[in-house]
Amino acid sequence: MHVVSVCYRQPTDPTAFDDYYAGTHAPLALKVPGLVSFTTGKCRSLDRSEPPYYMVAKLGFETAESLKAGLTSPEMQAAGADVANFATGGVTMYVQEENVILG
Amino acid sequence: MHVVSVCYRQPTDPTAFDDYYAGTHAPLALKVPGLVSFTTGKCRSLDRSEPPYYMVAKLGFETAESLKAGLTSPEMQAAGADVANFATGGVTMYVQEENVILG
Repeated sequence: MHVVSVCYRQPTDPTAFDDYYAGTHAPLALKVPGLVSFTTGKCRSLDRSEPPYYMVAKLGFETAESLKAGLTSPEMQAAGADVANFATGGVTMYVQEENVILG
Repeated sequence: MHVVSVCYRQPTDPTAFDDYYAGTHAPLALKVPGLVSFTTGKCRSLDRSEPPYYMVAKLGFETAESLKAGLTSPEMQAAGADVANFATGGVTMYVQEENVILG
């Protein structure tokens, strides 16, 4: 699986972030061609420190080809352009090819 | 799924990191009770910038209870103590309860 991780830093208004994400951004991301998995998760640290991100979303694609097609699609461009509308804390993205050791 | 993300920053010697991880650290992590999934993935950015991490490992647990039991186990303490032996770039960890939107 080829996975895009979208790491959102703490937004100024978490409730507004959550509402916009669920109502507007997630539906845009779901339109990206080739997307086979899509998860989100709020982050907490293992001690009492601030976690590095507020939420991380993961978008999965089956192959390197479908990842490339998805990333360069008009739907991904629309989703990407929408990020500035709600990600008030900023965002960091990276791609991984997952190596499954267990599961 | 409750997922622990272990985010390794760029090590000074990537080959030594990879060898130690595969030969010593991954076997230690696999001993953690309650672990149901374990993936690793080298990170690349979507532009030409440096990705935030060299590699991210994800350890999955079925329930909040099995996560807690795994995190507090002697096996996790051993794996955690081993991190200093190879993670020369430092490490950031966070926990998420994954919300599956697709997949």
